[in-house]
Amino acid sequence: MNFCSNCGSPVVSAIPPGDHLPRFMCSSCGAVHYKNPLLVLGCVPQWEDRILQCRRAIAPRLGYWTVPAGFMENGETMQGAAARECYEEAMAQVEIGSLLAVVNVTHASQVHVMFRARLLAPVFAPGAESSEVELYAEDQIPWEELAFPSGDFTLRRFFADRAAGREDYHFTELARPLRP
Amino acid sequence: MNFCSNCGSPVVSAIPPGDHLPRFMCSSCGAVHYKNPLLVLGCVPQWEDRILQCRRAIAPRLGYWTVPAGFMENGETMQGAAARECYEEAMAQVEIGSLLAVVNVTHASQVHVMFRARLLAPVFAPGAESSEVELYAEDQIPWEELAFPSGDFTLRRFFADRAAGREDYHFTELARPLRP
Repeated sequence: MNFCSNCGSPVVSAIPPGDHLPRFMCSSCGAVHYKNPLLVLGCVPQWEDRILQCRRAIAPRLGYWTVPAGFMENGETMQGAAARECYEEAMAQVEIGSLLAVVNVTHASQVHVMFRARLLAPVFAPGAESSEVELYAEDQIPWEELAFPSGDFTLRRFFADRAAGREDYHFTELARPLRP
Repeated sequence: MNFCSNCGSPVVSAIPPGDHLPRFMCSSCGAVHYKNPLLVLGCVPQWEDRILQCRRAIAPRLGYWTVPAGFMENGETMQGAAARECYEEAMAQVEIGSLLAVVNVTHASQVHVMFRARLLAPVFAPGAESSEVELYAEDQIPWEELAFPSGDFTLRRFFADRAAGREDYHFTELARPLRP
């Protein structure tokens, strides 16, 4: 950030009165510009014993596989965002279920929140950000070709819980990129 | 938003190529400026059978009572943010426990996430944003003087679960301000 989005003057980094962290502050109008963590919402859509995976058609991690997930938009609920992302990336309609995983990705200032989901029908196709969409059984998951550590964590907990007949939620922290 | 925080030129609201929502885009350097939901993290700190409440010394809802909670900062985990807010507002140290409530505050584009917590000692004092901090038993909660609907939801679920010997998590949506 170089300029104030309110008045267009240069910003400086300084600790505002009563605050405890440096913020970008406008040198002219005094506006304080905060930067806060971003929410990424996703789901594991299930049809019978298989789950839906998307092959990424965009950077980062182009060509690798992921659960459908993406940035939550203003005005959405978490569940609404997860269902929308599934429709955009996999053209698939889901009913969002229980909370599955919350991954604090501190190095990127993101929180990834993943739900279980039920595919309403075995109907899907690549959305604009996917090159392939497939239903995979557990023994077909391309573990070595998963795009993101948070997706790996999510799928491992999903299958472990399913095998145990549970629907627990799981928190974890990914403090640095696994692939720097 | 009026000006590009990257180059200082005026922004326009338009749908970027491949996107589906209008964003603020720079008329000069082409930067796209996204606005996304904010995370508010809090907890219900318990000591024996009582819980900690803070009376707000700042707007909004000055003079009303709240669980300790506030905006998550970059680089934090959800649990880290909840514990930090408790220290800032109530000068109290806690161990964060199980997930209690997730409140989708869609009208404000916020998600409030609340945890159960254990006070490490009955030691607390008003932080800069509080005028009073008190331990209250369930029958002492000032229900009519609570600052925020998300706090009301959180406390009601907390006491209901505690009475039932459960530690469930609860999602809800607050689609509009209860007090417009």
